[in-house]
Order: sequence, then structure tokens, then C-alpha cells
Amino acid sequence: MHRVAIVGGSGFAGGELLRLLLGHPDVEVVQATSRSLAGRPLHQAHPNLRGRTDLRFSPPDDLLAADVRFVALGHGETAADLDRLADGAGALVDLSADFRLRDPGRYEATYGAPHPCPERLGEFVYGLPELHRDALAGATRVSGVGCNATAVNLALLPLARHGLIERAVVEVKVGSSEAGGRPSDASHHPVRAGAVRAYAPTGHRHQAEVAQELGDFPLSMSVTAIEMVRGAAATAHVFPTRSLDEKELWGLFREAFRDEPFVRIVKERRGAYRYPEPKILAGTNLADVGFARDEASDRVVVLSAIDNLGKGAAGSAVQSMNLMLGLDETRGLDFFGLCPI
Amino acid sequence: MHRVAIVGGSGFAGGELLRLLLGHPDVEVVQATSRSLAGRPLHQAHPNLRGRTDLRFSPPDDLLAADVRFVALGHGETAADLDRLADGAGALVDLSADFRLRDPGRYEATYGAPHPCPERLGEFVYGLPELHRDALAGATRVSGVGCNATAVNLALLPLARHGLIERAVVEVKVGSSEAGGRPSDASHHPVRAGAVRAYAPTGHRHQAEVAQELGDFPLSMSVTAIEMVRGAAATAHVFPTRSLDEKELWGLFREAFRDEPFVRIVKERRGAYRYPEPKILAGTNLADVGFARDEASDRVVVLSAIDNLGKGAAGSAVQSMNLMLGLDETRGLDFFGLCPI
Amino acid sequence: MHRVAIVGGSGFAGGELLRLLLGHPDVEVVQATSRSLAGRPLHQAHPNLRGRTDLRFSPPDDLLAADVRFVALGHGETAADLDRLADGAGALVDLSADFRLRDPGRYEATYGAPHPCPERLGEFVYGLPELHRDALAGATRVSGVGCNATAVNLALLPLARHGLIERAVVEVKVGSSEAGGRPSDASHHPVRAGAVRAYAPTGHRHQAEVAQELGDFPLSMSVTAIEMVRGAAATAHVFPTRSLDEKELWGLFREAFRDEPFVRIVKERRGAYRYPEPKILAGTNLADVGFARDEASDRVVVLSAIDNLGKGAAGSAVQSMNLMLGLDETRGLDFFGLCPI
Amino acid sequence: MHRVAIVGGSGFAGGELLRLLLGHPDVEVVQATSRSLAGRPLHQAHPNLRGRTDLRFSPPDDLLAADVRFVALGHGETAADLDRLADGAGALVDLSADFRLRDPGRYEATYGAPHPCPERLGEFVYGLPELHRDALAGATRVSGVGCNATAVNLALLPLARHGLIERAVVEVKVGSSEAGGRPSDASHHPVRAGAVRAYAPTGHRHQAEVAQELGDFPLSMSVTAIEMVRGAAATAHVFPTRSLDEKELWGLFREAFRDEPFVRIVKERRGAYRYPEPKILAGTNLADVGFARDEASDRVVVLSAIDNLGKGAAGSAVQSMNLMLGLDETRGLDFFGLCPI
Repeated sequence: MHRVAIVGGSGFAGGELLRLLLGHPDVEVVQATSRSLAGRPLHQAHPNLRGRTDLRFSPPDDLLAADVRFVALGHGETAADLDRLADGAGALVDLSADFRLRDPGRYEATYGAPHPCPERLGEFVYGLPELHRDALAGATRVSGVGCNATAVNLALLPLARHGLIERAVVEVKVGSSEAGGRPSDASHHPVRAGAVRAYAPTGHRHQAEVAQELGDFPLSMSVTAIEMVRGAAATAHVFPTRSLDEKELWGLFREAFRDEPFVRIVKERRGAYRYPEPKILAGTNLADVGFARDEASDRVVVLSAIDNLGKGAAGSAVQSMNLMLGLDETRGLDFFGLCPI
Repeated sequence: MHRVAIVGGSGFAGGELLRLLLGHPDVEVVQATSRSLAGRPLHQAHPNLRGRTDLRFSPPDDLLAADVRFVALGHGETAADLDRLADGAGALVDLSADFRLRDPGRYEATYGAPHPCPERLGEFVYGLPELHRDALAGATRVSGVGCNATAVNLALLPLARHGLIERAVVEVKVGSSEAGGRPSDASHHPVRAGAVRAYAPTGHRHQAEVAQELGDFPLSMSVTAIEMVRGAAATAHVFPTRSLDEKELWGLFREAFRDEPFVRIVKERRGAYRYPEPKILAGTNLADVGFARDEASDRVVVLSAIDNLGKGAAGSAVQSMNLMLGLDETRGLDFFGLCPI
Repeated sequence: MHRVAIVGGSGFAGGELLRLLLGHPDVEVVQATSRSLAGRPLHQAHPNLRGRTDLRFSPPDDLLAADVRFVALGHGETAADLDRLADGAGALVDLSADFRLRDPGRYEATYGAPHPCPERLGEFVYGLPELHRDALAGATRVSGVGCNATAVNLALLPLARHGLIERAVVEVKVGSSEAGGRPSDASHHPVRAGAVRAYAPTGHRHQAEVAQELGDFPLSMSVTAIEMVRGAAATAHVFPTRSLDEKELWGLFREAFRDEPFVRIVKERRGAYRYPEPKILAGTNLADVGFARDEASDRVVVLSAIDNLGKGAAGSAVQSMNLMLGLDETRGLDFFGLCPI
Repeated sequence: MHRVAIVGGSGFAGGELLRLLLGHPDVEVVQATSRSLAGRPLHQAHPNLRGRTDLRFSPPDDLLAADVRFVALGHGETAADLDRLADGAGALVDLSADFRLRDPGRYEATYGAPHPCPERLGEFVYGLPELHRDALAGATRVSGVGCNATAVNLALLPLARHGLIERAVVEVKVGSSEAGGRPSDASHHPVRAGAVRAYAPTGHRHQAEVAQELGDFPLSMSVTAIEMVRGAAATAHVFPTRSLDEKELWGLFREAFRDEPFVRIVKERRGAYRYPEPKILAGTNLADVGFARDEASDRVVVLSAIDNLGKGAAGSAVQSMNLMLGLDETRGLDFFGLCPI
């Protein structure tokens, strides 16, 4: 049994990590920290964990030795405290945005300030196994992924890896859990319920992760918050560099995902679930990807869906951990989702 | 008081027409027909009308004389029976798609079959007052509008009228009432609830109405069904023919909508309602339009929101009727929407 | 035109009052106050009012003379400042709970502290026209109603007025707008969405208003928060003092509500809207009431539905104002609700 | 590995059984039948199972030998065909209502017609392990449970087993999946969404299962359909035979559920999850139970929540199967639910 710990265990990503790791057959959760809930049982923050464990939150200052330490703190907190957070940990997985971008210039352009320790950026592997499986094997510094970036990266991967994208316009529909666990005027239920809110019509920060991972083709990305708690769904309008027919598209998608345990191609001729649908992915590490070719033009519309807290955060982190530890990468990630839901 | 009648009064558009016309100060509803509910009170189909009127559905074969007759039947039914439906009516407003497209070729390309009476297409005015106010004044044949087409037409109008659109990619988010009142496997609540369904990733029929009204620039339009009953919201990514700065954009939008009683420009710096939000438009004839300029490119993202049954159907039809009858065009359309909702 | 003003105009009840009063044909809104939004347009708090008025929020300290002043402040604020709030107002309608209970002992038992000015309690008429129509005519001090109390009072009135209730057990299902406009951990969308939360399994404060208005029969009242923004629906299990057959029940309900312009009896044999349904009442001043007799016992189940912000708050307040001013009591309250919604 | 089969595998209960059994470490699913989908992959009916198995639906007439055969057909179908359905099966678990009631008179009173094979009723054990654990061990005929009955049975068990209930009034809030997989006018999304529908204000059939299992105290049960897909939540107002203080109540609930692996007592002083909440139980076999004592009377309000497809159907069936086969009863049921959701 590998010893794992979570620093910042009371938020949504921390809770999902705890849920996955408590059910993982090869690890033991030795610690979950929370400043505000130190000493309290985990179910005070995560009511679904009631009866699942006797573990209580520990204060964030007493970090126990662990084989893998996950950090799920707020923006900038990992970078500000990296040495202490890494001390005593065989490996570190940071779920924040602090170490996702390798290039300091891109970081500054995206987050509006220079990175506090740019020389450390290169230590981290971007924790999306579909893109960095080899580098993750045995890695000791891994960054988690942006949820919306992941929905887009997996949608565009089959075409981008062959340089087939001339331009892409992507609209991502997201749930309310993306904004985290802190209430705000905008997250107040009477306001947020039933919303179709142009949260980021332009300039979403995750766009930088797509550019880093897939290359710098022109990408226009919008994020719209809709009535949903978990889930992210991308509609990617791709203008290809050359005409692609249905058969070639099938080939490209199959080639990209044939060996991926967590990516499914969803493209049916009929039924209510013809294309990826995020609701049936809640709790899973799956990414569903499909496509439709516009008969009237060369445009290809690629659809993708994930659970933003699963494949878009904790799921990919656990899958990365499996690779880091040399375990089968599907261990602990066998939940396949509910339907109806 | 003008006498108005509704043929096909038991569906969603018919119900919204009834609600609006029963509250209209200048008209009297003399008849609402329904084949399946003939003889039954209106509230059997529209429970919100309980206690509002003593009118009962009449059989569809006995059409009473009326100053304006609205037809809200299924696809193809108006075209198949136009003379009878128009007989005894001072003016006709057809809410189906039968007479929206003036060009028979465009109709056939869109609906997959030749129009049954192409020579009659030219008789009808497209019933969007923001585009055809003058022609609607005194018109006796008017077609209703496509709901998604309306969300897109009003979003793109300020740029399209000046030939400023090189290419547009539009994603429309829609509610379940768009699919009408008949249950199906796909509309079954456990299936449809919480869905983010790529209903028409390519090739939505309403695209033809945009092309007709705004011109044939390259337009890629997707429709996604989300958790919502009423409402349509468009996110239109416009690649302009030349760079447009913030000030010029404000000027274009103000010029387009300055005198429009039902279009509001919504573009705030903060708050949860910075951009158009369809939920607060339920029951109204309003269209909210806003825009965001992408700092990193020339792209302009235009956002619009309507009630698909209001401005996208019955509301525009009543506004058109007001113009047809020489009434103030806002009569009977003074509901401003609810918040919170 | 009567001059009306709203003190505390930025909350949910204040916003609904503004919406109703701005559309009321016989009144002019001269003022709406807000401490935090003074000087800002009304649509900063109530986006549905955008374009509806040029009025801006005024600071709460400069109260303009008004024929009727509505007060929609927080618990205890009206009682603490009654003289100032009443000064310069022909009549006062207070929407808080401060003056709903006439008996100081009942107030203290309910709110856990003595009333600050118990001698003033008797000045106020309880603002539910269905119970106090005569006293409201010409009244100058009126209290608003509790929303859940109203759902229960109207459900039980037909039986209670004849002393036919031996015991009642009432479960009220409520929406998130009941908790007001301030965000909290419990109102955070990812937490509140889809909830079935035993908000007050026992001891809801509104129970005291039912006891005051209908008498002190044993009443057990629970409040459950469900996925809904607006609306309250009561399921009242009544154990009658004697057996009541279907015909007698119909007679009792018809007698109670025959002349009520805003109460509808809803009891159908088939269809999806056989009994009261709150969603179609959003925005209205309607209360729908229905009943079912348990074949297997003497129990009668009475169902009622209202919009908590309408008949349960601002709607009843405007109806009361109409009576106070000698207007037709339905003026300004003619919105009949949307369907589908 | 035990061989299990499902007859009627395309409905909601069948799908949930498949999901659980495909993930069960000690069984192999040898067959799932469907008349309409014979030959098609399981994910045509259950999109969450895509990629989970190569199994396809088989026609209902070719039943393979199995250690346990689950039957998830419509009302009356099992009773009409019991011998054939049981043939070749080591044990049978029927999820319909056909064999839940042991007493033919109760069956007829509840379902309005005599049971077709009343002599077989006694063969079946009622499949709720919390009530019939011993009888289930080694049983070969087991009936599934009614979902709403289960929410009520587990809520009332701690008091009923000691004869402490003089009268109970129970309101059950239910999701749309309770009505099954077939669309109807009432399940049409625009109609069902946001509903608070008095589905069965009196006379719900599951009441008979409560009477059978807990005894014939006066029970008034109402079922209200709310906005939810999965889940059932009971609010049970219990009038006890004698006064019960908080301490005694804790003792009774702890005694009842101390050794139950799937029942949790949920009763917190603060937070948004103080009492049972069905949404966090989706996909689990858990039942959460809590209570509140009315300070002002002897009434005790007991709250319970389950997943109607889990503990209320497929979960209890699998737990029963585990007992029947002599397995640890928690095998295959270790999913603990999601939060947020």
C-alpha cells in the first residue's frame, strides 16, 4: 500500500480526490488537511464520505510523510510554498494552475503577473495521461489539468496532432462546481439556477493550456455557465487545413483513442445519447468524444464531455498517480457513471 | 376591438399566443381550435389560463370570421390548406416554417422537398419587426419566425447590415419547449433533465432564415439542448471583415437598436447579469443583446437571449399583428420578465 | 395617481414589489431605497427592470412623502424605526415579520425575544385580503404575510372557518428565493441545486401566523427546501372533526373561494396538472387550492400552491394596497402565469 | 463466479442491476434480455455502460441457466409466467410488485384484482435485508421492494418495531425515474421539469408494503413528484404512543441501525446536510435516516432518503442476492455517492 496525503482536502477537488483515493485498492490515505476544519471528520465537508472512514482533517502545518502528496490549494499557494509542500513527499501532484504552463511568458500573459518561481516550472509534467503517459511514468512533480482545457484538448487532439486545424472556435458549457466551494453573489442559487451565463465569452485562462499542449493555431474559446453542477461539454467548430471526409475522420479519432482506457468515441445515428453527454459521466474519469461533419462546408464539429471534477481534475490526477507509481493506470477509477441521472 | 382567432391552439406556441391575446387590450379572441380538445376549456391544454376565460376549444373545421387569424399547426399543414385557412380572415399570421423562406430553392434545400405552392411564398412578410417593420404595416400575409433564427438574426444584425461579417460561428443553447408539446423518448424527463445534448451540431434548418435575412456570409450554426424549458441563447463568434474597436462596436449596436422597443443592449462590467440571460426573459417579447471583443484577436463575440416562445414565436407574431392593424406595436406586450426565476 | 415608495428595494420582495408597482395603472413609484446601491439604476439589483424605468435607488435616509410606503427591510428593522418609517406616509405596508402577530406573547414564543414595541402590534392589519378584506379597506397600517403561512392559511381556511379540523400535518415544499438575496454556504448552487433539504422539520416560525389566523388546533408543520427558485406548495393532511364526503368538501371549498379573484380550486381527474402546481404561478398573485379525500380513512389532503414572492409577499401587499386605497383589488395584478415553464 | 441473468434488462431497474452486477467481483452476467433491443449492445439502452461489456441484449425467450435470475418486467408479467421464468434458475429475484405482498387479500385491495397465483405468494421473501436478513440467507425466491415503501419502512422501523407509533403521516418526495422509462404526457420535460406534483395525495400502493412489514398502525402516505431524477425522501410525522425524549430516540435509532452496513443516521446541528439528502445517495445502496423531535408536542419527524433505483430497487436486490449466495452482503455495493452533485 502506497501512502498518499491531500493538502487542502475540504474543497471540491480535494473531496473528489478523497473519494477516489479512499476507494483505491493500492493506496492508504494517511492525511487530509484543512485549516478551517482541522480536527473535524471528513464528512463535515464531504457528506458523501460519512461512514466511509474515521479519518479527520488535520491542520495544514503538520504534513506527514507520504509516497504521493496531492496539493489542492488556491491559486498561487503552491508556488508560494513549494519546498515545504514537497518536503517529505516521494512525489507531488499539484492541482492548482501554478505549474501547468511550462513557459514563464505564457504564464504571465495568462495570469497577469510573473510566476514567483519560474525556474521550477520545468520540473512539472502536465498531468494528462492521454498526452504525457510516458513522462508521467515515474515522475515526481506533476501538475493537475484545467478542466475546460481538458475538454478541449481531448476534443481537438485527433486533428491537432496531425496539424489539421486551421482555426477552431470552441464553446464550453460548464457546471457550477467549476467555481469552487465558496459562495458568492453569482453562485447564489436563485441567481445561478437555470442560468445561461456568458461567463467568459473571450479570454478564458485555460486557453493557454490548449495552446501549450496542442500548438498555437488560432483558437477562440468561450465558456458558458449553464444549469449543471458537475460537467463540462465542449462544442468545437474546427475549420480544417484540408477537407476531411467521414471515413478519414473516423480513422483519426480511432487512432487517437484506440488504446485509451478512459476515452470513448460517441457517435450514434439515433437515440437521445448520440453524442457525448456530460451528465452520465458524473463521478467517472471518462472523456467522451464525438464529431459531426458539416455537409455544407469543410467544418468539423467535435463534441466532448467530461466530469470537470473527474477527468478534469481528480480523476486525471489519480490516473497520473497510478502511472507515477507504476500501477495499472485504471486502478481505483472503475466507476462508469449513472444513467438515468 | 379587433377579432382574432387561433387555429391550432393547443400547442406551446398556440398557448403563448392565447395568453398574450387574452391580455391584449385591443383584441378579442373569438376562437381557438383544437382537434383533440374540441369542446374542452382552454385550461385543459394551458393550465395557466384557468379562470382567465370561458372560451373553449372549437373544432378546426368551423373557422369563424376574424380580423387576424393565427395559424399554429404542424410543419406543412398551412401550406397544404392555405386557401381554407385564409378564407374569412382579414389577415393571416402563420407560425409554422411553411412560409418563412421566400426562395423556393432555399426551401427545398432546407426542408428536403419542393414547396407545395412556391408561387405563394412571395405573399408573406417575414414577421420580425426589427427587420420588416415597414412591410408589416398593413400586411395581410405574415409568417412567424424561427426561434433560433431570431436569436441569431438579432445578434448579428448590427454587424451584418454593414457587411462587416466575414465568417460567423454560432452556438445556440435551447430549452425543451423548442421541441413542442408531444412527448418522445428524447423528451422523457429522466433523459432530458440536465442534458447537454448536441441536438444539431451542424445543419440546423433555421440557418436558412439567417441567410435569407442577413445575407450569405459563411455561417456555422450549432444547436445544443440544455436544462431549460423556455429560452434560447446564442453565442455568436464573429470574425469581422475589418478590425472593430470597442467604441465602434457600441456605436453599431446602439444604432441598430436605439429605436427598438423590445431589444436591450446588455453589457455590464460586473454582476451576475453582465450579458444577456434568457431566464429573466421568460414570458416577454424582449431580446437582449450584448457583445465582447476579444483582446487577443479581431473576433467579436455577440451574445443574445430570447424567450423562444416569446420573441421567438408568439411575441413577434403579436408585435407583427400590432403593426398589421396599425396599433402601437408594444400593445399587449408589456410583461417585462421575472427575477429571480 | 397615488404616490408609492419602497424602503428596502434591492431584495427579492422589494424587487417583486417594484415590478408590480411599476406596471400598476394607478400608482407612481416615487422612490426605492437601498443603502448599498444608492444612486444606481434599479436594474443593478433587478435585471428584469432594465429599460423599464429611469428611477435609481435613493439612500434610505431621505424618505419622500408617499400615499403608501412599503417597507421591505430585514427582521426587526421596521420595529426599531417605526416612527421614522411611517412619517410622511399616508399608509404603511411592512413586509417583514415584525407586525404580523398581534399577541406579544405569541411573538416572543415565536421569535425568542420580547417585541420592542408591543403596544404598536394592534395597529396593524394582517395583509391577507382573503381573511381581512374589510379591515384592509382604508387601513393605514398593514403587515405583509409569511409566504409559507399563506400557503397553509389558504389551504386550511375552508375547513378551519367551520371548526372542522381536529389535527393537521402540513408539509410545505419551498424554493430557494425564500431564503432571500444574500448568498450563504447553504445557498451555494452546487449545494442547493437538486436538494431535498429538511429545512425546518419542526418549529417553523410561520406556524404562529396560521395559529393566529385560523385558530389553535394541533398543527404540525414541516418545511422542505427543494429544487425550485420561486414557489411554495403545501400538502396538508387534515384529520377532520367528523367525516366529510366529496360533495360536502366541494361545497366548503367553493363557498370559501367563490368570490375570491385570486384563488382557484384545482382538482381534475386527469392530466399532469390535476392539483395545484406552483411553477405555473410564478409572477402571479394567484393561490391554487385543491383537495383529495382518502377513501381509506377520514383524512382529507389539501394541496395549495403560490408564488412565495407573489401571493406570499409582494402580490398580497399590492392587493392590500388596492383595498387600502379604495381601488379595485385586482388592479395591477393581472399576470396569469406562464406555461410551459 | 456465480452466473447471473436479467430478464427485462432495458428498463431503469434493469439498467441499474446491470451496472451493479457488471461491477460485482463475484458474479458474471451471462444474459440480459430485451424484446425490443434483442441483438443490440447494452449501451443502446444504458449509455453509461458503453465500453463496459461486450454483452448484447438477448431475446426474452431464450433463457440461459443461471445461479440467480433477476426479473425486471412490468406489473403482472412475472406472476403470469412464473414457472418459465424460474426454470433453469437456481434462485429468482423478482423486482416487480407481483410477489411483494404475502396476503392475497392485501394484494387484491391494493392492486384492484385478485392475484393470479395466490398460492405462490408465500414462497417469496421480501427482499429488504434490514428486515429479513435471516430469511434471505439461502432463499431461492425473493421479491424486490417498492422504492417509496423502502424509504418509509426504514424511517419508521426504529419506532415501529417497539410498537411506539400511534399514527404516522408520511410525505414522500420522488424523482422522475420512479415512473419508469416510457415517455408520457406527464413525463414530457417541459411539463415535468420543476414540477411539485401531487402524484398520489392519498392511496399510494406502496403503503401496503409498509403495513405488511411494520404493522397496521394508522398510516397516511402522500407522494409528491419534484424536480429530481433519482431519489426518494420521506418526511414522516410520527405521533408516538408515549412521549419520547431526545436521548431515548437516539437509543432507538442506534439500536436499529448499529449493525446495518447501508443505513446511516444523519442528524447534525449545522451545515447544509444536517438531515438525509437524497442527491448524495445517487448510485448507492445507502439509506440515510435522521429525526427531529418537536419541542412543542410529542411529534417526532423522521427523515429518510434513498436512491429509488438503488436501495429502493436494484441495490437491495443485489444485497439480497449476496445473502442468498452466502457472500458478504456488501460485495459489489461499495459506491458511496458523489458530492457535489
